[in-house]
Amino acid sequence: MSNTVGVAVYGLGTVGSAAVEIMQAAGNGRLRLRHVVVRDKARKRAIDFDPALLTDDWCQPLHDPKVGLVVELMGGVDPASRVVRRALESGKHVVTANKALIATHGASLEALADAYGVALRYEAAVGGAIPLIHTLRGTLKGNRITRIRGILNGTTNFILTRMSTDGMSFDEALREAQRRGFAEADPSADISGLDAAQKLVILARHAFGYWVPVECVERTGIEDVRPEQGEVFKLIAEAVLTDGSLRLRVGPQRLASTDPMAHVNDENNAVLIEGDFAGSLTFIGRGAGALPTGSAVYDDIVAAIC
Amino acid sequence: MSNTVGVAVYGLGTVGSAAVEIMQAAGNGRLRLRHVVVRDKARKRAIDFDPALLTDDWCQPLHDPKVGLVVELMGGVDPASRVVRRALESGKHVVTANKALIATHGASLEALADAYGVALRYEAAVGGAIPLIHTLRGTLKGNRITRIRGILNGTTNFILTRMSTDGMSFDEALREAQRRGFAEADPSADISGLDAAQKLVILARHAFGYWVPVECVERTGIEDVRPEQGEVFKLIAEAVLTDGSLRLRVGPQRLASTDPMAHVNDENNAVLIEGDFAGSLTFIGRGAGALPTGSAVYDDIVAAIC
Repeated sequence: MSNTVGVAVYGLGTVGSAAVEIMQAAGNGRLRLRHVVVRDKARKRAIDFDPALLTDDWCQPLHDPKVGLVVELMGGVDPASRVVRRALESGKHVVTANKALIATHGASLEALADAYGVALRYEAAVGGAIPLIHTLRGTLKGNRITRIRGILNGTTNFILTRMSTDGMSFDEALREAQRRGFAEADPSADISGLDAAQKLVILARHAFGYWVPVECVERTGIEDVRPEQGEVFKLIAEAVLTDGSLRLRVGPQRLASTDPMAHVNDENNAVLIEGDFAGSLTFIGRGAGALPTGSAVYDDIVAAIC
Repeated sequence: MSNTVGVAVYGLGTVGSAAVEIMQAAGNGRLRLRHVVVRDKARKRAIDFDPALLTDDWCQPLHDPKVGLVVELMGGVDPASRVVRRALESGKHVVTANKALIATHGASLEALADAYGVALRYEAAVGGAIPLIHTLRGTLKGNRITRIRGILNGTTNFILTRMSTDGMSFDEALREAQRRGFAEADPSADISGLDAAQKLVILARHAFGYWVPVECVERTGIEDVRPEQGEVFKLIAEAVLTDGSLRLRVGPQRLASTDPMAHVNDENNAVLIEGDFAGSLTFIGRGAGALPTGSAVYDDIVAAIC
């Protein structure tokens, strides 16, 4: 029993619900769900767990000595940053899917985690279940990474695909994405390339070793892209190391049909990692969605307590 | 100094040379090359290292207490299996790129490694630098894997690509592959699908939990494939779990151009892993070649001593 790690989950939206479900389905005896922190306790929940675990007090689980790991799935920079900082300072491991938080405060949160000897993991923040950070941290050790290039935003990829292949207008494609749950009510972070830029900053940190401010990413959105039938446009995020200088940019590119990225459609993500010895490695998968993201969260939980 | 791990490398072909080069370039202070075992000490070597490390005696490094890790890159089942068994029984970690050895003796070698508390790693045996075993072992923990499907043999993929796109005959394409170093003088293990079957057995072990004998893989080679111009044939290796029953097969398949695998050309490999939560993840990269394989060997070396 002393080996059991208490878990507090912050946020019970689609990803939070999926993470709790996967945790319960996996039945890992070392994990014990102790708190689920939500804004509205009264709201009806689709998943099945002990209602006594529900709380709307975000402070109390951070002071529970039986909680060894905090899963932050609230999204947004605040109050998520306060929860994560406090958790790390209390000696608790943190797993998060929050790309805005990590892209903004990654450097200081990493330093905190190091100082308190706990894990800070966020594989789910980039590319859903595609093991990108895992690969950059855990493999390719003998390699110097020279380039990262990818489709990091599923919403815009869905919109661009529908416009190219079905001849939809931008507005029609956006509404279809919203109807299917791929785009939020306010899609500006996706459309403007900000979401992709945040993810690129996170990948670049693990590929090249340092944190680039999101504001330093050259960025163009897809507002003005109007592909002709058959033309393939993708919102490409790219980090290139040239003569020791690192350049990050996000913007729409017209791709030739011979480019493997041209065939990555709908809400899928793809990332190419180029290493001097490994050559080009390409990873493709669903970049978002409750279950893929929840799956990555669960992997991080298990990795953190190992 | 007590933290330094002595390394003995067996075999100095293209992969062995690349692995030694990457090891030296990486300059990891914890690793120290102590022996390089070759068949012919007199042969001229393209890489630069202390010639006093060269030996043609494969027994002696196994009895050197300063050797903590053996890198087996001789290929073939014998005498590689004797070297690897003896190394594990001597409490030394083993890293190998030898798919024939692992597909044949993986179960007993794993048991030996467990019994002696050492690591046995072979990421380089499948898919070059693509982190497939790493992903199956290290991530997707909450997932039940339902399917693996891939192009696991670069030689046959190169031949099939040349036949489809350049209208080469089988013999012309094979000669071109040999000229470029993608096919060996005796290409029968590639052409017959045996090489792909061995790799599939290794992936299936990590996806589904047990070792299937290579002889139990349904297998058809590419000898009789004659694609018309524009038709895409690939040698597809597939492991599918249906109603708890696992079926492994390797054979040529004609693919529609909408199949992402249809665009994986030349000597590239691709593997799709399907998990019940993560969805479909596809990994693409060079499946062979000295540097990608050497890169994977180096990653395994670092992982083994961590």
